[in-house]
Amino acid sequence: MTYIPIFRKRPPPGTAPGTLRVPEDAAPSTVDVMQYDADELTERRLEPFADVAAGGRPGLMTWVDVTGLADLDLLRTLGERFNIHRLALEDVVNVHQRAKTELYDDQLFVVARMVRPDTQEAIEQVSFFLGDGCLLSIQERRGDCFEPVRDRLRAGRRTIRGSGPDYLLYALLDAIVDGYYPVLEELANELEVLDERVMTDPDESLLADIHSVKHRLLMYRRSLRPHREAIGALLRDESKLISAPVRVYFRDCYDHVVQALDMIDNYRELVGSLQDVYLSSISTRMNEVMKVLTIFAAIFIPLSFLAGLYGMNFERMPELRLAWGYPALLIVMATMAGSMLLMFRRRGWLGRRRRPAGGGR
Amino acid sequence: MTYIPIFRKRPPPGTAPGTLRVPEDAAPSTVDVMQYDADELTERRLEPFADVAAGGRPGLMTWVDVTGLADLDLLRTLGERFNIHRLALEDVVNVHQRAKTELYDDQLFVVARMVRPDTQEAIEQVSFFLGDGCLLSIQERRGDCFEPVRDRLRAGRRTIRGSGPDYLLYALLDAIVDGYYPVLEELANELEVLDERVMTDPDESLLADIHSVKHRLLMYRRSLRPHREAIGALLRDESKLISAPVRVYFRDCYDHVVQALDMIDNYRELVGSLQDVYLSSISTRMNEVMKVLTIFAAIFIPLSFLAGLYGMNFERMPELRLAWGYPALLIVMATMAGSMLLMFRRRGWLGRRRRPAGGGR
Amino acid sequence: MTYIPIFRKRPPPGTAPGTLRVPEDAAPSTVDVMQYDADELTERRLEPFADVAAGGRPGLMTWVDVTGLADLDLLRTLGERFNIHRLALEDVVNVHQRAKTELYDDQLFVVARMVRPDTQEAIEQVSFFLGDGCLLSIQERRGDCFEPVRDRLRAGRRTIRGSGPDYLLYALLDAIVDGYYPVLEELANELEVLDERVMTDPDESLLADIHSVKHRLLMYRRSLRPHREAIGALLRDESKLISAPVRVYFRDCYDHVVQALDMIDNYRELVGSLQDVYLSSISTRMNEVMKVLTIFAAIFIPLSFLAGLYGMNFERMPELRLAWGYPALLIVMATMAGSMLLMFRRRGWLGRRRRPAGGGR
Amino acid sequence: MTYIPIFRKRPPPGTAPGTLRVPEDAAPSTVDVMQYDADELTERRLEPFADVAAGGRPGLMTWVDVTGLADLDLLRTLGERFNIHRLALEDVVNVHQRAKTELYDDQLFVVARMVRPDTQEAIEQVSFFLGDGCLLSIQERRGDCFEPVRDRLRAGRRTIRGSGPDYLLYALLDAIVDGYYPVLEELANELEVLDERVMTDPDESLLADIHSVKHRLLMYRRSLRPHREAIGALLRDESKLISAPVRVYFRDCYDHVVQALDMIDNYRELVGSLQDVYLSSISTRMNEVMKVLTIFAAIFIPLSFLAGLYGMNFERMPELRLAWGYPALLIVMATMAGSMLLMFRRRGWLGRRRRPAGGGR
Amino acid sequence: MTYIPIFRKRPPPGTAPGTLRVPEDAAPSTVDVMQYDADELTERRLEPFADVAAGGRPGLMTWVDVTGLADLDLLRTLGERFNIHRLALEDVVNVHQRAKTELYDDQLFVVARMVRPDTQEAIEQVSFFLGDGCLLSIQERRGDCFEPVRDRLRAGRRTIRGSGPDYLLYALLDAIVDGYYPVLEELANELEVLDERVMTDPDESLLADIHSVKHRLLMYRRSLRPHREAIGALLRDESKLISAPVRVYFRDCYDHVVQALDMIDNYRELVGSLQDVYLSSISTRMNEVMKVLTIFAAIFIPLSFLAGLYGMNFERMPELRLAWGYPALLIVMATMAGSMLLMFRRRGWLGRRRRPAGGGR
Repeated sequence: MTYIPIFRKRPPPGTAPGTLRVPEDAAPSTVDVMQYDADELTERRLEPFADVAAGGRPGLMTWVDVTGLADLDLLRTLGERFNIHRLALEDVVNVHQRAKTELYDDQLFVVARMVRPDTQEAIEQVSFFLGDGCLLSIQERRGDCFEPVRDRLRAGRRTIRGSGPDYLLYALLDAIVDGYYPVLEELANELEVLDERVMTDPDESLLADIHSVKHRLLMYRRSLRPHREAIGALLRDESKLISAPVRVYFRDCYDHVVQALDMIDNYRELVGSLQDVYLSSISTRMNEVMKVLTIFAAIFIPLSFLAGLYGMNFERMPELRLAWGYPALLIVMATMAGSMLLMFRRRGWLGRRRRPAGGGR
Repeated sequence: MTYIPIFRKRPPPGTAPGTLRVPEDAAPSTVDVMQYDADELTERRLEPFADVAAGGRPGLMTWVDVTGLADLDLLRTLGERFNIHRLALEDVVNVHQRAKTELYDDQLFVVARMVRPDTQEAIEQVSFFLGDGCLLSIQERRGDCFEPVRDRLRAGRRTIRGSGPDYLLYALLDAIVDGYYPVLEELANELEVLDERVMTDPDESLLADIHSVKHRLLMYRRSLRPHREAIGALLRDESKLISAPVRVYFRDCYDHVVQALDMIDNYRELVGSLQDVYLSSISTRMNEVMKVLTIFAAIFIPLSFLAGLYGMNFERMPELRLAWGYPALLIVMATMAGSMLLMFRRRGWLGRRRRPAGGGR
Repeated sequence: MTYIPIFRKRPPPGTAPGTLRVPEDAAPSTVDVMQYDADELTERRLEPFADVAAGGRPGLMTWVDVTGLADLDLLRTLGERFNIHRLALEDVVNVHQRAKTELYDDQLFVVARMVRPDTQEAIEQVSFFLGDGCLLSIQERRGDCFEPVRDRLRAGRRTIRGSGPDYLLYALLDAIVDGYYPVLEELANELEVLDERVMTDPDESLLADIHSVKHRLLMYRRSLRPHREAIGALLRDESKLISAPVRVYFRDCYDHVVQALDMIDNYRELVGSLQDVYLSSISTRMNEVMKVLTIFAAIFIPLSFLAGLYGMNFERMPELRLAWGYPALLIVMATMAGSMLLMFRRRGWLGRRRRPAGGGR
Repeated sequence: MTYIPIFRKRPPPGTAPGTLRVPEDAAPSTVDVMQYDADELTERRLEPFADVAAGGRPGLMTWVDVTGLADLDLLRTLGERFNIHRLALEDVVNVHQRAKTELYDDQLFVVARMVRPDTQEAIEQVSFFLGDGCLLSIQERRGDCFEPVRDRLRAGRRTIRGSGPDYLLYALLDAIVDGYYPVLEELANELEVLDERVMTDPDESLLADIHSVKHRLLMYRRSLRPHREAIGALLRDESKLISAPVRVYFRDCYDHVVQALDMIDNYRELVGSLQDVYLSSISTRMNEVMKVLTIFAAIFIPLSFLAGLYGMNFERMPELRLAWGYPALLIVMATMAGSMLLMFRRRGWLGRRRRPAGGGR
Repeated sequence: MTYIPIFRKRPPPGTAPGTLRVPEDAAPSTVDVMQYDADELTERRLEPFADVAAGGRPGLMTWVDVTGLADLDLLRTLGERFNIHRLALEDVVNVHQRAKTELYDDQLFVVARMVRPDTQEAIEQVSFFLGDGCLLSIQERRGDCFEPVRDRLRAGRRTIRGSGPDYLLYALLDAIVDGYYPVLEELANELEVLDERVMTDPDESLLADIHSVKHRLLMYRRSLRPHREAIGALLRDESKLISAPVRVYFRDCYDHVVQALDMIDNYRELVGSLQDVYLSSISTRMNEVMKVLTIFAAIFIPLSFLAGLYGMNFERMPELRLAWGYPALLIVMATMAGSMLLMFRRRGWLGRRRRPAGGGR
């Protein structure tokens, strides 16, 4: 498992800001452009990259969706074309940013972190630039959770086709935020299984599984939490880029973030409690083991001593000559063992005395 | 126990906002309408749904109480009739919202979470829309804690009949908040029993019960806590929908939420302390077990060795021939056992040395 | 111990606000009235309740001190006479309010919680209504910490007789807050005893006592903490009911609350630390027990084996015939035991090796 | 150790505010007066107390330094002479105040808590009254950390002699705050020793020492923390008593408080971590002990059984007659012991397998 | 390891503010001056110190970089030349300041803490004074992370050469903040190794390594955290010293601090979780050890007793005479051992029953 976030291959300290470096394992770049208004929608893949604005009559909304960061020239060209601040462009390429919203002059720069739909363990960075009439999104690699949004655009759904790029930004961010819910649901399922196992069958692997759930919760929380602030900044945004009717939608998206974070905190407390139960069940079990050992030892060690005593080879041990010596000793031994058992029963060491779990409810 | 909140069957990520989906296990929908002023009260069940406004003279307050979410057409009709934003309507149907207050133009949208009076483990969502002269409430299923409010309306109690729908909203929210008190009281009783058991009879089932109480506290806290913010928003509300005299009542309701949350936090600390006591009582008990084992072993193992020594078959073991060899050995053995016992008594290992629990008070 | 706060016998959820119910075990009601100015003081017990205002010339300050909540008619009459909001009156009777300050029109409503001077475990609610020229205080039952204030009034002390009812309110609240100090001091004494015991004589009852101190700290904190906010609200009060010179006194009272809360937090950390020390001393002791057991077992079990070996009845065991067989074996055995002891001494298992506690200082 | 703060001998609850009581063990009172400006400095001990103002030409700064609280008349006289509010005077005598800054009309009242330089465990209260052209400081007992400040005054250092009493207040507060550094340094040394011991030689006394460090950290934090707020209040002070150039110095003093608190928090985390390491080293050691016991028991108990078996006195035990019976049994026994040892070696129970501590670095 | 921060050799409490003392082990002082504008760059080492302004035409930006604090005269001269407040100069020399930003009249004083690039354990203080057209930086000793910035200056990079000293301050602070990333990456690597080891091979040295990682995290957090506030103060700075375009860069630098702190908090939670896993794996292992012991003891102790019984030398023990006595006893013994094994198998004590770690995923 590689849940420990690593941010290798950063530019070395002291490098000039805005220096672009292709991240390791960068995927090849492609550019998809959708241009639409309420009446019309065109969809193109630009390869090699041509001017986005070319084609399409004025007044159309433009969504430029870049995938893959391998082609730095492409990114630089986009940077110039969309007038992107070089610090923002550097953040696009250093793919370990926290989610955030920044205002550059006439442009909103939003970074979000998307759970990859194919492998839920990986989280990739998606950067958005919201300008007047256009939205630029830049993803790390192919495979995203935007397909339903594209389908709504293609299907000519009135709300999304009739609104500006701010609504499109909302739709994409909402898809990203909602993408955390299935993985949390998966964790909820694992938690239920762990809860069952900790009560009935606590073994050592349980702890590794608890540890794993804990780490994934930590990873999702770390990734999701800054979205609250980022989307909150969009809500309070002072630029004119987010229109008032769309703000209501962002408020809804903010609610989803808060609810998911609430879930995560809840799960973390549950995991902590599970771990406590597991640890104390280990202690309880060790107690059981010790009791078994002690009962055997306390009963048989004195008896063995007695047997050893009369196994001695002294010439004068009068008891050995007595006809009733052996049966008498057997009776003494049985009495000792019986009284030991009685004592242990009184201390409640015999019988496992378990009430059914949850019996107090 | 299904205390792990699950929010399955959410619409998939990327779905258009406002998409309504019948939640799983949705109850069939019914609509009850009460119209009243200080002088007059009519009560009707609309089946099939007819226009609410029909019947009743102008100036009457209207409370439309919808139960069950199975009939999406009904909800859509209501949405149009009451001019509900589609995001709010989506929240009504996605029944895992946190409690919240939102202002839509001329309408207050309030979500609350109600402990079901029949089975205190389940918590259902109740949505309210407060408009001018009317209140719409939408519950997940039949069975609520509103009956006393309805009785007060029917009995013609002056305050509630003479006030507007804002007071009605207060009365219903207050009933919901007060509904948490009996379940907390139940938990307080369980805690007292656990406190007694942890001191007198700590067994493994205790831990499961502590775990269960902890989880329910977590569930209630998670459910109740957002009400503080939601009702606080009503207190500070800038719309004209909550009149000044009713605000005093909401302040009282806010107090009740804070007090219940205070209780919950208190109980959580008590549960944590109980768990500590339980864990350390396990350790103490293991100590007792180990002492018993060690005492038996330390006394009898050396004696057994001596007995074994004189059980050896060497031809020349002069002691074996001595007439007083056997009684002398017995005396040596008794002395050894006695001095061991003395040592253990000095170390305080004999006797359980328990002061009566709470004896320090 | 009944430290788990219980709030039974609340009105059922949905009851109309302002519904008064006699709390269980309510004490019979009495009314004591003091009227005073700098020159004159009259003191009366009203039984049955007569109009408070009767008697006494205008301009006198009036303190109406009600004890016992059994007589609802009396409370309703007072409510009308002093123009009390019915929500406030309900809070008076539901005696599990948190401390708070609320402003109703021309009246300050203050709830405080008083440690009962007779039995320091119980905490009762005291409600105050501060109006123009009069103070109404309502206590749960007889027995309070106000006697020194009454004595100062009777003794004609200038400050209190020459000030308005706001100063009287201060004096009473200050008496309530100061009433927490003796019980905290009592807890400090118990903590010192526990600290001593945990170092010298940790037995199981210690844990119960730690648990008990923890719970009482929790109870006092829960009860005292809201006073900070309540008295803070009086400091910032916007009504004219608290005059500027008296505010300085309330600031002092606020300081006392903060200081006591500070103490409680301090004690809670100390208790937590004591518990850690106790738990680890149990572990250490178990280690000691295990070492004793292991030393005995490791020395004597091999020796017993050797003795058993030469106790076998094989016909051909040449060693048994040797004249020096027995003494040689004894030497071997002594060597084995000695080398074992040496090994254990090297591992530091022999001797208890305790430095005097606190010897590191 | 008496680290549990006790505040006995407070006036009983309900006592009139401003009542002065000599604290227990109050030191006899003396009054030292320094009067100075840039050119001139006089230093007098007033005994008995005479009017401070007497002697010295107008325009001189006056520092009245009172030591010891035994003489209440003196304090009352000073209170009248410097126009001190009686609540402030009460705080001077009740020597368990938290550090604070309060503004009374034309006077700043500052309470600070000084680590006594002679015995670093004790912390005493120092009260300051800053008025126009004069500073009054009241200490609990002789022995302070102000001598270097007095020396700077006597040496005619320009800054301190040329500034007003606000700078003097700064210099004294700064000396008090800096007085916490040596004791923290002492604790850092103890922590280093503990860190060394916990890795090499964890015995039970270690825990007592950790406990002691923890408590002293708690004590210093409790004492120092309110200074942050108190000095912060001086920074934001709205009276004219602190001049703008001196505020820069108070900012520096504030920084020192924050830095020392930062240290304390750091040390507390280190202590907590040390305790965790200690506890788990106990567990690890118990594991070692158990392994030794188990290895001995598992090897020799089966062997002893075999020896016991052939020590039985049955008449027909054919093996006993065999010439090679005894050597064959010895070989069997050696094989069993060897295979046991092999199994334990495989489980890694033999050898202590310690990597050098810190070897992972 | 010397991770416990020590601040020895501070001036004694009560020393006049602004007193300069050479810190212990102070490095010899050198002064390097760079003067530049977009067209021209000169670089000089001043030795002995000459007037900085000498040489270079007006309008050039000046960066004076002082290394080593041994030469107090140099520092005093610089202090006079750059008009530095003596409190600031004292902070330069007392090299244990927290990172901070302070405004003195027309000068910004910034303290930062730099991870030394040569030995990542040590952290040194760097002080900056930003004035009009010049930046003064003072480092503790040779060796810094500024070389790339110098290279950018020398290479004539347009942004840095064309901007003022505020941009240079940004570039240096950014280099300092980025210097924390490699050491965090190193810690992430160690964490991955620890995570692997705790699952496969938990021995005692692991705990020491966890302890070490924990302490270094604490050290870096303590050092880095105040930078957030310090750089935040630069962002909100009200002086004209930071120009609006450069503020965008400081925002980026602020982001880097927040991201690194986020990482550190994340790692701390991971370390805490690792420690929990380690502790509970110790408990689990002890359970295993105890089970082995108990199984051996429970099987062989009763058998040994039986063997001892028939090893007794009573004259009348009829069983010993029976021809089938010995084989019958052997069968009884085998039956007992077998049923014991069966019981232990049922309890799940036999076999290690480990699911593959992470098998629950």
